[in-house]
Amino acid sequence: MEPKENGNQLGRVMEGPTNPMVTPLLNDLYQFTMAYAYWKAGKQNERSVFDLYFRKNPFGGEYTVFAGLDECIKFLASFKLTHQEIDYVRDSLPGSEEAFCDYLRGLDCSDVEVYAIPEGSVVFPKVPLMRVEGPVGVVQLLETPFLNLVNFASLVATNAARHRFVAGKSKSLLEFGARRAQGPDGAISASKYCYLGGFDATSNVAAGKLFGIPLRGTHSHAFVSSFMSTDEIVDKVLKSADGKTTCDDFASLVQTWLTKIQYSPSLRGFFSETNQSELVAFISYALAFPKAFLALVDTYDVMKSGVPNFCAVALALNDLGYKALGIRLDSGDLAYLSTEARRFFCAVERELKVPGFGKMVVTASNDLNEETIDALNKQGHEVDAFGIGTYLVTCYAQAALGCVFKLVEINTQPRIKLSEDVTKVSIPCKKRSYRLYGKEGYPLVDIMTGENEPPPKVGERLLCRHPFNESKRAYVVPQRVEELLKCYWRGSSDEAREELPPLKEIRDRCIKQLENMRPDHMRRLNPTPYKVSVSAKLYDFIHFLWLNEAPVGELQ
Amino acid sequence: MEPKENGNQLGRVMEGPTNPMVTPLLNDLYQFTMAYAYWKAGKQNERSVFDLYFRKNPFGGEYTVFAGLDECIKFLASFKLTHQEIDYVRDSLPGSEEAFCDYLRGLDCSDVEVYAIPEGSVVFPKVPLMRVEGPVGVVQLLETPFLNLVNFASLVATNAARHRFVAGKSKSLLEFGARRAQGPDGAISASKYCYLGGFDATSNVAAGKLFGIPLRGTHSHAFVSSFMSTDEIVDKVLKSADGKTTCDDFASLVQTWLTKIQYSPSLRGFFSETNQSELVAFISYALAFPKAFLALVDTYDVMKSGVPNFCAVALALNDLGYKALGIRLDSGDLAYLSTEARRFFCAVERELKVPGFGKMVVTASNDLNEETIDALNKQGHEVDAFGIGTYLVTCYAQAALGCVFKLVEINTQPRIKLSEDVTKVSIPCKKRSYRLYGKEGYPLVDIMTGENEPPPKVGERLLCRHPFNESKRAYVVPQRVEELLKCYWRGSSDEAREELPPLKEIRDRCIKQLENMRPDHMRRLNPTPYKVSVSAKLYDFIHFLWLNEAPVGELQ
Repeated sequence: MEPKENGNQLGRVMEGPTNPMVTPLLNDLYQFTMAYAYWKAGKQNERSVFDLYFRKNPFGGEYTVFAGLDECIKFLASFKLTHQEIDYVRDSLPGSEEAFCDYLRGLDCSDVEVYAIPEGSVVFPKVPLMRVEGPVGVVQLLETPFLNLVNFASLVATNAARHRFVAGKSKSLLEFGARRAQGPDGAISASKYCYLGGFDATSNVAAGKLFGIPLRGTHSHAFVSSFMSTDEIVDKVLKSADGKTTCDDFASLVQTWLTKIQYSPSLRGFFSETNQSELVAFISYALAFPKAFLALVDTYDVMKSGVPNFCAVALALNDLGYKALGIRLDSGDLAYLSTEARRFFCAVERELKVPGFGKMVVTASNDLNEETIDALNKQGHEVDAFGIGTYLVTCYAQAALGCVFKLVEINTQPRIKLSEDVTKVSIPCKKRSYRLYGKEGYPLVDIMTGENEPPPKVGERLLCRHPFNESKRAYVVPQRVEELLKCYWRGSSDEAREELPPLKEIRDRCIKQLENMRPDHMRRLNPTPYKVSVSAKLYDFIHFLWLNEAPVGELQ
Repeated sequence: MEPKENGNQLGRVMEGPTNPMVTPLLNDLYQFTMAYAYWKAGKQNERSVFDLYFRKNPFGGEYTVFAGLDECIKFLASFKLTHQEIDYVRDSLPGSEEAFCDYLRGLDCSDVEVYAIPEGSVVFPKVPLMRVEGPVGVVQLLETPFLNLVNFASLVATNAARHRFVAGKSKSLLEFGARRAQGPDGAISASKYCYLGGFDATSNVAAGKLFGIPLRGTHSHAFVSSFMSTDEIVDKVLKSADGKTTCDDFASLVQTWLTKIQYSPSLRGFFSETNQSELVAFISYALAFPKAFLALVDTYDVMKSGVPNFCAVALALNDLGYKALGIRLDSGDLAYLSTEARRFFCAVERELKVPGFGKMVVTASNDLNEETIDALNKQGHEVDAFGIGTYLVTCYAQAALGCVFKLVEINTQPRIKLSEDVTKVSIPCKKRSYRLYGKEGYPLVDIMTGENEPPPKVGERLLCRHPFNESKRAYVVPQRVEELLKCYWRGSSDEAREELPPLKEIRDRCIKQLENMRPDHMRRLNPTPYKVSVSAKLYDFIHFLWLNEAPVGELQ
């Protein structure tokens, strides 16, 4: 792979996309065959307007989180075909003329404009997430990369938001999906966009480094089973947290505590002998991370071995002024085990008089998803943090979002894409979109209008029409009007455009927007659809154009 | 991102992984916390053996295609932490000692060995796809990247193989998933591994360039709707295929043919007026690609507009010695439309005496998957090529494969991972695996043995036991014995190891292996499970170790 130049000569300097594999060749061949055909027909510079939108909310829900914009704009800013790429394209187009290569060489996004809803916004079907304007030859080449960068990003951010919704605000949500994700940046982008959608941390070190996401992780079963006997601990010395005293044999201190637990009246019923190699692994781990001791307790048996072993180590650490963090459960009945573990911690607190010991953090991490967390909530559990992998990062419940990129205008002429399936008919025209808010501060409806229609006004009654269903319409008196599309790229023009905020800010926006939705749109079962509409004028125009383009059938 | 060095100083020079984001930081944090704890305990160089395997075939099937090995070995070869990466890791481990950084600085895979089943092989649950040996501190850091590189690769290659199985050998299978894939290299690796699993081509230009996969693509609906009237075609001149004659007005020639079709007795029943802007788009496209004219015919109406327009252009091309390729259908009832289109092409061939016109290629591409292709087969259709996107590349039917990486030996001591769920118990010991073939040449059973057991012999009766089910066992007299694990990485040793074959060869292997499976293992509905077994000796040892490690319960 050739090194990509960062930034561009147009306007401010900007980094390229996170993944260096995101180049203009991350494209369907037909974008290049079309570019060639446009160029051959002398149409390549005709001004076109494309809308990027999706048709249906994912996961059976009624909302979606928009993500991926930042990467799109960075791609745009660095859009330039290298010589080698141009040669490859030429060789891939049968019989193409050499002069087309000159055209490709000159291509950049200096004449493209991108309007978009801010990343991290809650968004709805049919309303353009992005409106991309520019010479049709170039804009066509943005279709596949933009869709690729937005589709999964929005899908996985929405999935994260849904997991947060079911887990509740007070729980820690940790993304643990790197090993099961769809390839290397399936992992890295999942980490990024799960954080955007409201997760607290990731296990993915690369994502932590790239995006400043907090990292979390402890040890695996392999670590536990790699230990055999106490002899393996060579250096048993541990200094106290304040550095003032030294324990020469931490292992013995742990053993003392284990015996105390074993003979304590209210604890001894729980277990008899614990697994010694597990205990050795825990001691080793505590010696390495006395300030951050968190143990995986299900390698042998959670309540008969893992939890008592953990407590012995945690109590020994406590003697030296350290506070253990807690345990992780990775198998079995999480509702039952978390409750039992909590009971044990509380008994330790009472019996051995260690204030706060009952509040030990319980992390759970076994094939979790929306449904299992919901089920845990219904059963009652004592889990404080959920580590979620496979189902979250691969969006197992629905592995793709169907964003599309449709031509809505060319040479100032509105265009419509018809289909026998009415949900697939595109909404023509270069448009504006607004979100109208009601008295209680909730968003009520999104409305699309023609580019030159006057904007909706606060306090003024307005007819909102379903774009395709004649009978569905409603009057609205907005208490607040928010224009949705903002300019994020204005080619080489110096006019102001929106900044790309840092990930943390996008995440804050997302969380705030989700909290500001009317609750019935957000519930898991039978949520109320949020209304998406067009102005009366746009409605009439859509249907005029539709009749104009559709062939008249002949019954035979 | 810092530039990665290609190759290593160990043995032959090798390129790094395809995606520059595949670095040692593409890892779960806990691999580093464990590396630190091993190092603190002085255990980091203990010789460990890990097995990488999966527990269940995906998609309700009974086979899996192993893929991703090539990328794993390239990752291994270039494994080296940069200074910046080391600093980041240190800062991520609370209270870690500076000397650990020196350890990380010295880390490479010069003491690691990797044995694997050749990439592109048909593989089965529980049998190690890879056996990774080396210092536990390093091998632990390979877990997440290896799983990430193998899980999706094998899943999507298997998905491709299943699509091939249902479509049949004679059809062209085209991967069209770039826009819906899970991120940029969700797209690029899907293209790579779908080709490996038996697809013929991709639309993904980057994948074509990186891996030499044939490219396919024509034009989209946007191209069709970007045209308005015949005036837009400025240059109507087209030279004949042999270069000897020139048609000055190709558009008029097309118009003449359209009229001929319209008035031809057996064709005129089909349609009345075709959409003129569609016709103009087709003419423009044919002028750009006279040798490769393939038109998307469903923008307005397939049989009333798209197909007749296509035929008019194809017939005009035919006059000039060009052969049009065919049509693409992207919506509607594909069984019906493909049959109707074929009927029309055959009528044109008969009526207008154009030999071969009836054989025009029909490509279909609307949300296809295994089920829809199966349904098309049952209904009867005339599709020659399937373009498959979303369902293929995101593995929509099952978005993840659950490969795991388990410690099976450390310091020559076998280790077992227990679980209340018996399917999750690991098979301990450093093992060898063999595939035993029967009289008819089909594989009969895979068997795992201890490292030092004598290999199965051709013609000698052998007891194969289910690893966990006492009553499941069978005698086998193999006609051929194939050792499955071959050495792909031997650290810095000069001893021979397997070459990494080019993608095309891996694909050939995959296709051949799939064809050599007994058909009942391969069928879509209720396939017969392929048998996976252990030797009698290994069976006994597993159960000895299990009893040894499991805590004895106490009924209360």
